[in-house]
Amino acid sequence: MAVAELSTSYTKTATRYHSSQLSLSSASSRFSHHFRRSFRPTPRTRNATISCSVTSDQVQAQIPVEAESPKGKTCYGVFCVTYDLKAEEETKSWEKLVNIAVSGAAGMISNHLLFKLASGEVFGPNQPIALKLLGSERSIQALEGVAMELEDSLFPLLREVSIGINPYEVFQDAEWALLIGAKPRGPGMERADLLDINGQIYAEQGKALNAVASHNVKVIVVGNPCNTNALICMKNAPNIPAKNFHALTRLDENRAKCQLALKAGVFYDQVSNMTIWGNHSTTQVPDFLNARISGLPVQEVIKDHKWLEEEFTEMVQKRGGVLIQKWGRSSAASTAVSIVDAIKSLITPTPEGDWFSSGVYTNGNPYGIVENIVFSMPCRSKGDGDYELVKDVIFDDYLLNRIKKTEAELLAEKRCVAHLTGEGIAYCDLPEDTMLPGEM
Amino acid sequence: MAVAELSTSYTKTATRYHSSQLSLSSASSRFSHHFRRSFRPTPRTRNATISCSVTSDQVQAQIPVEAESPKGKTCYGVFCVTYDLKAEEETKSWEKLVNIAVSGAAGMISNHLLFKLASGEVFGPNQPIALKLLGSERSIQALEGVAMELEDSLFPLLREVSIGINPYEVFQDAEWALLIGAKPRGPGMERADLLDINGQIYAEQGKALNAVASHNVKVIVVGNPCNTNALICMKNAPNIPAKNFHALTRLDENRAKCQLALKAGVFYDQVSNMTIWGNHSTTQVPDFLNARISGLPVQEVIKDHKWLEEEFTEMVQKRGGVLIQKWGRSSAASTAVSIVDAIKSLITPTPEGDWFSSGVYTNGNPYGIVENIVFSMPCRSKGDGDYELVKDVIFDDYLLNRIKKTEAELLAEKRCVAHLTGEGIAYCDLPEDTMLPGEM
Repeated sequence: MAVAELSTSYTKTATRYHSSQLSLSSASSRFSHHFRRSFRPTPRTRNATISCSVTSDQVQAQIPVEAESPKGKTCYGVFCVTYDLKAEEETKSWEKLVNIAVSGAAGMISNHLLFKLASGEVFGPNQPIALKLLGSERSIQALEGVAMELEDSLFPLLREVSIGINPYEVFQDAEWALLIGAKPRGPGMERADLLDINGQIYAEQGKALNAVASHNVKVIVVGNPCNTNALICMKNAPNIPAKNFHALTRLDENRAKCQLALKAGVFYDQVSNMTIWGNHSTTQVPDFLNARISGLPVQEVIKDHKWLEEEFTEMVQKRGGVLIQKWGRSSAASTAVSIVDAIKSLITPTPEGDWFSSGVYTNGNPYGIVENIVFSMPCRSKGDGDYELVKDVIFDDYLLNRIKKTEAELLAEKRCVAHLTGEGIAYCDLPEDTMLPGEM
Repeated sequence: MAVAELSTSYTKTATRYHSSQLSLSSASSRFSHHFRRSFRPTPRTRNATISCSVTSDQVQAQIPVEAESPKGKTCYGVFCVTYDLKAEEETKSWEKLVNIAVSGAAGMISNHLLFKLASGEVFGPNQPIALKLLGSERSIQALEGVAMELEDSLFPLLREVSIGINPYEVFQDAEWALLIGAKPRGPGMERADLLDINGQIYAEQGKALNAVASHNVKVIVVGNPCNTNALICMKNAPNIPAKNFHALTRLDENRAKCQLALKAGVFYDQVSNMTIWGNHSTTQVPDFLNARISGLPVQEVIKDHKWLEEEFTEMVQKRGGVLIQKWGRSSAASTAVSIVDAIKSLITPTPEGDWFSSGVYTNGNPYGIVENIVFSMPCRSKGDGDYELVKDVIFDDYLLNRIKKTEAELLAEKRCVAHLTGEGIAYCDLPEDTMLPGEM
């Protein structure tokens, strides 16, 4: 397909989505050869709605209440109250507040995730939490509803909640950015369209993170296509270490462990060393060569090699689709659990001999995977928020061939979004639809 | 209204709902004077669907896998695996498995609650969990979806999941029964109709608990109208201590604490001793006379007495309605949090000087509230699953008058369901609609 043809199709896409559905507009820079790394744009969206159910005439304060703090933070309701945690007996031993930004905060995955973050289940009982919730103009009312439910939950550790639609405000000082928000694929929309429309959202959010977040912010991208969204986000945030960007493949890992356990007739806690290689798409590679069951190589326990090669991957991938059929909704709860798992894997030391999967930057990888893409690989962490790639994995021809295929797909996706990563003119030749069943 | 007229209207309701929407049928005994306490009916619903994604030809078991254990338990997927927790290093110090039955398990409240129960957030890190999920014929597919998501979440503590539509099977050996399932009120349906239709569900479930659950099962009723449903359930389960039945008013308590905090300009953790008196309806009484803010009586902190008497209660009650307006859905997440709070309040010692609210049986209460109803009152627990009513509360005329009103409503509701509690002929004269906004 010629570049000229492609440009036409892109322009059509742009017309279709940018003017009517997206409040972010950046069509002007989409085909630019020059990526403006140092450019920090004025926020283009309207100012975030500041909603605070404490109004000055309602308050008879023992303690000062502010709807807007000196730093320009927005806040919601009871979370506008200020106080000194160090002054109270029960809270004086607590850690410093951690700032967690969540996009797509009015959606169903977030509706599970936010309450897990707020309850202390993720960061532990001594870690107070600030939630910074990013929505869209369309979802801002729903976001207020979410904030109200967080108020009514009386979580002792949840000390700040702010809501808004401007990432340059909401991402301020974020130490974690859990980027869930993405446009779902509409009828007749091709994967290339989705890459473009969501890529623009992630380019904008990358710029915002670069400008206002903590310089060591950890970013977990959930919105699809998540590997390429993570790459775009990273490329638009040059001041943040590239290593800090993750694409979520943990739900795939969890599902793969469960399917191996089911096949082997063991409980899922017996399955370890499960790698998902590559893209969060149907080209992903759940690795049964390196995985272990009760400490043994999978193939010593599951002798049905045909099942492993021909059915296992499909079992993992079709899970989301089967779930939608049965439950009528996508798998929000288990996705939220897998985001929690992904965070916990970075803040607690990985058990000896084990590892976890995450879609991370390939530069410097020891596997010979092409550099400069975001690829799911096996990681270990000391629990400090950082990770290293696992060296002692083995490959056979079957595994290598499949890794090559998912690598090729990610390179093709990358060419599709070159206008968003500062790498020139986009050229899109995605061969087939590789969206996972049940995902949007 | 004459009894004869009422009977006609009931029959119509019965025709409308029992044949088409409800699989439970018990119209024959509905106006009987004689309540058959010792009668243990044969389960009327069809046998529970046994779904297990392990089929015999798939399994290459190291460890035996059973889809149905000798005791006739059903199980789901990976939770059909059997093993010896005492044999493994990491699990040998764990407590004995706790059996938790949940009705309405395919609904949105459960979708939050089940993952909290399974994660260890409620019962702690050494307490393995068995979830026994009750759905309806209509929801059994969705229930399989829920079980699949629980599988994919790999919760180490979640060791058994069974699903079914027959309470006589699902409630087997339950030590906790969290009864969330209820019919929502359809268009044109009066509160009396709702009392009858849901009362029949709760009568059936009470009989099932009586027959097959642990004799000391703790029952928390969430489905509306929850106080009267809890009473019906209790009256149909004479072998279970009446004290063990709770109607959930914890979300009301939490919302009341939050509104006082907002008004006082303090964080919600400063509000204590919050009682909800009476019915989970618009006649409920959030008690600002006994509540405290930073240890002080509320009225020493909030001087706006008019607000307390005229607006506070409304603020608490309209919360659910406002939330539906904003968020478009009912408050499933915060309801699930409040169920967790209710359970935790019974399994952990109540902090000194504080209490919590629960709708419990009034027999022997020290407040002069009429006996033989389920009424929300202040409770304290030693953390053993049991509770005692708090003695040192004060009353004034305002509080007493409002308690009288909610008491009168509960007595009227009780007369409406006399055919379900074994107390004779139902006589229904509910004066007005007292459903809380945003609830069904």
